[in-house]
Amino acid sequence: MNLKIHDRMQTFKREELNRIHRASMDILENIGIAFNESEALEIFEGNGFKVNGNIVFFVERDIFRALETTPSHFKIKARNPKRSVHIGEDDWVFVSTYGAPFICSSSGEKKPATMEDYDNICKLVQTSKFVDMNGFKHVQPCDVPPQTAYLDMLFSNIILCDKPYMGSTDSRQAARDSIEMAAILFGGKERLKEMPVMVSLINSLSPLQYSEEMAGSIIELARYRQPLVIANMVMAGASGPVRLAGLLALMNAEILAGMTLAQLAGPGTPVIYGTTSCPTNMKNIAASVGSPEAAIIASAAAQLARYYKLPCRSGGSLTDALVPDGQAMAEGSLILATSVRSGAHFILHACGMMGSYIGMNLEKWLIDEELCGMIRRMLTPVEITDETIDVESIKAVGIGGNYLMEPETLKHYRTEFFWNDLFCKEDHNTWSRKGSKRVEEFAADLLLRRLNTYRKPDIDPAIEADLTEFVTRRKEQKKIR
Amino acid sequence: MNLKIHDRMQTFKREELNRIHRASMDILENIGIAFNESEALEIFEGNGFKVNGNIVFFVERDIFRALETTPSHFKIKARNPKRSVHIGEDDWVFVSTYGAPFICSSSGEKKPATMEDYDNICKLVQTSKFVDMNGFKHVQPCDVPPQTAYLDMLFSNIILCDKPYMGSTDSRQAARDSIEMAAILFGGKERLKEMPVMVSLINSLSPLQYSEEMAGSIIELARYRQPLVIANMVMAGASGPVRLAGLLALMNAEILAGMTLAQLAGPGTPVIYGTTSCPTNMKNIAASVGSPEAAIIASAAAQLARYYKLPCRSGGSLTDALVPDGQAMAEGSLILATSVRSGAHFILHACGMMGSYIGMNLEKWLIDEELCGMIRRMLTPVEITDETIDVESIKAVGIGGNYLMEPETLKHYRTEFFWNDLFCKEDHNTWSRKGSKRVEEFAADLLLRRLNTYRKPDIDPAIEADLTEFVTRRKEQKKIR
Repeated sequence: MNLKIHDRMQTFKREELNRIHRASMDILENIGIAFNESEALEIFEGNGFKVNGNIVFFVERDIFRALETTPSHFKIKARNPKRSVHIGEDDWVFVSTYGAPFICSSSGEKKPATMEDYDNICKLVQTSKFVDMNGFKHVQPCDVPPQTAYLDMLFSNIILCDKPYMGSTDSRQAARDSIEMAAILFGGKERLKEMPVMVSLINSLSPLQYSEEMAGSIIELARYRQPLVIANMVMAGASGPVRLAGLLALMNAEILAGMTLAQLAGPGTPVIYGTTSCPTNMKNIAASVGSPEAAIIASAAAQLARYYKLPCRSGGSLTDALVPDGQAMAEGSLILATSVRSGAHFILHACGMMGSYIGMNLEKWLIDEELCGMIRRMLTPVEITDETIDVESIKAVGIGGNYLMEPETLKHYRTEFFWNDLFCKEDHNTWSRKGSKRVEEFAADLLLRRLNTYRKPDIDPAIEADLTEFVTRRKEQKKIR
Repeated sequence: MNLKIHDRMQTFKREELNRIHRASMDILENIGIAFNESEALEIFEGNGFKVNGNIVFFVERDIFRALETTPSHFKIKARNPKRSVHIGEDDWVFVSTYGAPFICSSSGEKKPATMEDYDNICKLVQTSKFVDMNGFKHVQPCDVPPQTAYLDMLFSNIILCDKPYMGSTDSRQAARDSIEMAAILFGGKERLKEMPVMVSLINSLSPLQYSEEMAGSIIELARYRQPLVIANMVMAGASGPVRLAGLLALMNAEILAGMTLAQLAGPGTPVIYGTTSCPTNMKNIAASVGSPEAAIIASAAAQLARYYKLPCRSGGSLTDALVPDGQAMAEGSLILATSVRSGAHFILHACGMMGSYIGMNLEKWLIDEELCGMIRRMLTPVEITDETIDVESIKAVGIGGNYLMEPETLKHYRTEFFWNDLFCKEDHNTWSRKGSKRVEEFAADLLLRRLNTYRKPDIDPAIEADLTEFVTRRKEQKKIR
């Protein structure tokens, strides 16, 4: 028995990671990646890459050169400096869900999401002990014009919450405006180049393509060295190989290509290696995001990211369930805990996601939030010293004794044990006398309390006025065009 | 960044494990362990141990000598040889819940459990793809006389299911009768000495005691070298130190003492090192079994067991929730997945446990069963070879292509992806048209199907008659006394 390795999750051998890397290089050299964006093609050509139409070919030297300028660890500055975060190596962050078109109720109804829903989630992030960053597109609001919704969302992100946030990659213009708004907030565009203030999400179009919006957003954001998650969601058996080994090679090739464009456009831009690839449910050709293979891929992604010395994004509390029931949390916690334990750094969809990304459930958001707190506690090392073991106290209590009233117990129990806000720890009689509530009912109560006690964080009124002016002007321009 | 270690769960350094071991030895040498059983005291005295009243003192040499005869891996023979299992090193088993006095409904009612409930769980184990062993005391039946209930349970275990099962440690007599019944089933008592056929659960009485029943059961079962889980459930801050470091030292001392008695009574008896220790909820002085500290202890137990080259039992799908809701499965899957991933071998309470051991919920049993299947799939290594990566197929599909109708997809999807029996993978419209069911409602449907399709496994009628005769006679004797 090997005493050193106690992890039953597969640890890939160096030779296995090399094999995946070589397969990805074969794909990049011989099939190439389509970039449907003219400036991206110009950048690649200008740097001596072989380009054929919209297809770019990469050799290993190109990838290694790009990796030379990617940091393995960086800081994201928040407008409230106490809430800045670190990403990479030992530091990871939990981030809300991204892109849900619907709000799902706990009884299973869905309705299109609104800006009010969006704002409520910003308020939950602001009041959260465990969610470290505000996201972007927690939900897709239906009650604002779609072409300028990103402006409303970015404005809410910045005004309602003083934690670091995510930028928009809805279009190249949205990425540009994310930079403009960050510049208003942080003292000018030139300062941004030396100071990551937001993280933006890039997704490749599998297999082996980048859309115009995504390639354009990489260029805009990398020019100001703002961190990018370069990610994909390859569906095994549909947009990628059915076998996980092949899927990893394809997924890896796409991410390396996007990472390379980011370094050409802005050397030193922090890149987070990401994926939420998963199997395809062959009964309805849908993504099975809550499957055990998704957890395998999450762990493999963390290992591949480490192979390239990049921080990693992998799955959050992902589920295929349509209500926040036992399935939702069995799938969600399996994937969330696997990702974090395996070493992922940017945990998107940590809170609230339902039904393979179809919707956001606010009660599940709070259930997931408690899970995030539990996982962070679980991964905090126990200090093993003669002082913490304290055999003398064990001798003092002796055989058959009781530790309840010991001074050591009173001194340490508040710091030694996780204090939960939501989960029921009552005995059956007390709980049934109070109405036999399920966790989503407790969460609905907590949701009201959290929203009622929310207080808008302070912001320099001049900055708020400038942001308001910017958003108003940009919306007017968009209407005219 | 260390490329080799990718596990954020604490891996104790050798020096930290040594420090816990030394503290445990200090406890064993200087406080000792109370054994409230006269033959146990005689065995210790006869082997030269220092005994003072009912307190036994141990030195390190005693522990190391006992460890010399404990196997790190063993096989449990089932009466259907195809269903025998291996325990230790790379092999682990999922086992049902143990000791629940109530049956909890999915809406939160509880009622005392009956033999019908007990038998239903044996039938679920028999028809399970993922639960490897039948347990003992899945529930505590209220409708049979308590002093002979173990006989009814053992009989059901053996007759209704042909997988390996657990013996009884309800009393020394119950342990003796477990041996008698196994002897009827497997061809005589002498044969048992070379052939583990059941696993029995021993619990110390924390802090630092063994009850008469448990010490007696160790002696009876070890004489026939039947495997023992030597375990405890120390409540941090109540029956043990509040700090986890001290709790580990106390817990370890108790287990080592029980292991030593087993080796003195029957050298070579397989011992599984076990714990489900957890914090005490200071609001109601109850065990908080679904807490993140319970997951930390589960992982630490697996590492301590490995330090002593023993197989490990740690937590299953444990929860403090009183309904099979999102909390139940968030807590349950966090602890179950942590235990298995960290290297535990005998996963008791894998299925069905509710509300800090207060009850068994049959719908949760099935939800947990699916989770067990997912975890086993998740921990199955992906083969990384040029053949499984198959770059040629990726080239054939090319940029923007579709893998759905590829021959490789059709060939592999059934074996590459986990096939779920229970969890909902439908789209929102289909699901809501069918009644917007929650997972516990799907589980209630599956429960009926499983019980309806159950078929009693074949057994030699002469053996069944002998077992019936034994149980009937023993019950008569118990009535007379």
